[in-house]
Amino acid sequence: MFLKIGERINSSRNDIAAALKARDEAAIRKEARLQKEAGADMLDVNCAFNSKDEPADMGWLVELVQNETGLPLSIDSPNPKALESGLRRHKGRALINSATLERSKLDSILPLAKNYDADIIILTMDEKGMPSTEDGRLALAKKALDTAKAHGIRKERLYIDPLVRPVSSEQRQGLEVIKSVRAIKSRFEARTICGLSNVSFGLPARTALNSVFLTMLLSAGLDAAILDVSEKKIKTAIRAAEALLGRDNFCTEYLKSYRSGEIEK
Amino acid sequence: MFLKIGERINSSRNDIAAALKARDEAAIRKEARLQKEAGADMLDVNCAFNSKDEPADMGWLVELVQNETGLPLSIDSPNPKALESGLRRHKGRALINSATLERSKLDSILPLAKNYDADIIILTMDEKGMPSTEDGRLALAKKALDTAKAHGIRKERLYIDPLVRPVSSEQRQGLEVIKSVRAIKSRFEARTICGLSNVSFGLPARTALNSVFLTMLLSAGLDAAILDVSEKKIKTAIRAAEALLGRDNFCTEYLKSYRSGEIEK
Repeated sequence: MFLKIGERINSSRNDIAAALKARDEAAIRKEARLQKEAGADMLDVNCAFNSKDEPADMGWLVELVQNETGLPLSIDSPNPKALESGLRRHKGRALINSATLERSKLDSILPLAKNYDADIIILTMDEKGMPSTEDGRLALAKKALDTAKAHGIRKERLYIDPLVRPVSSEQRQGLEVIKSVRAIKSRFEARTICGLSNVSFGLPARTALNSVFLTMLLSAGLDAAILDVSEKKIKTAIRAAEALLGRDNFCTEYLKSYRSGEIEK
Repeated sequence: MFLKIGERINSSRNDIAAALKARDEAAIRKEARLQKEAGADMLDVNCAFNSKDEPADMGWLVELVQNETGLPLSIDSPNPKALESGLRRHKGRALINSATLERSKLDSILPLAKNYDADIIILTMDEKGMPSTEDGRLALAKKALDTAKAHGIRKERLYIDPLVRPVSSEQRQGLEVIKSVRAIKSRFEARTICGLSNVSFGLPARTALNSVFLTMLLSAGLDAAILDVSEKKIKTAIRAAEALLGRDNFCTEYLKSYRSGEIEK
């Protein structure tokens, strides 16, 4: 089943930054509820931007959002202390978002996944940067699997993120990511995840592009994505893709969504 | 480049049937123009339904539609006499739509492709019917390539149609067609084509489903489709997919379509 991770609780958004600063519980609870009601299976929480004390902010967010929704969270930070603060308060299995294959990141973040029995996203990026090709991404996916294993983390706990880049500046990057997802699935039988919205950076009508990119990734076998589940175009894309890919028996969920007005005609 | 074939001149539509019966040139010209302006590269013409003299109707349609648009046509009939009547009047290279792999069809229709140097669609269907699986479709695609060769028709003149079936009654058929397109491209390097709309038969919000299915087929390598180019959702899906698949340098066509209001936001 495709895992839909709600992206909206992120301090790069002004209203979330303000709510964090003021410890405005109601504002955060509302964003959490909105995404749960829109069908999110998990919520991403990110307070890295503009935080004076990220571990404290993350701890507060994790407790509040789980208390409101009961959903598992994707704890999103480049800072191992913020990650651990979130993990310590999280109930059930969390998702660590994310580690790269840079030595310093591996040494500080992979042990957290092991200690807290969490899922973890590893990005196809190392000291040399982000590869542009399918082959480069596959080589780093292999390295991610090997490294996780060496840290005692099973493949079932891992998501590989092939790193989506804007097609406005590099036209081939959309296709390379689609091919990478397909290859990571077929060669390694590993789980894949993407943040969608980067693909449309610099272009107009971004939700149209994001939703089309999502359906192409779903047909390539993508397992999870961080996205705005409250967007009607995104919801339509997911329901239609699942019906068309044979993952929605008797098209039940599609028909239910249609009747409740969630499908864009 | 993806070939967009306009589907609207078809006598199963009431207004087209009436225009054919009354030899209403203006009505047919209008449909032809509308599709050309919406970006069709080719127009399908079909007068099989309810015709008293299909070869005469087809001849009239082909002359009229080419006279109005100058576009090449997909001459669409199960009747070899109607096909030949259209081919005789067609200027430039036509597309024969279509032959199956049933012996009687092959013997009557393949020679037309050879004699008129036309492109031809062969459906993955023989005396035993339509296969349900990717493997079954691939076996018939191979047979289509071999049979065409035996008739002196080069692979470059051929389109294979893996036959789209409704996901409402057979949930796996969408996925099997996507996999078939990918495999026909990679194993045989042959061109592929689909009629889209069958996939959504029996379901509501059909254009949403058709446009999502189209983007998934495009990412699998589909070369051509018969579709309603005048639908905004379809146009948006094609422009977005081409930008995302690296087939639209600097996203020029996407941006042009956006500025002229053709992209659905």
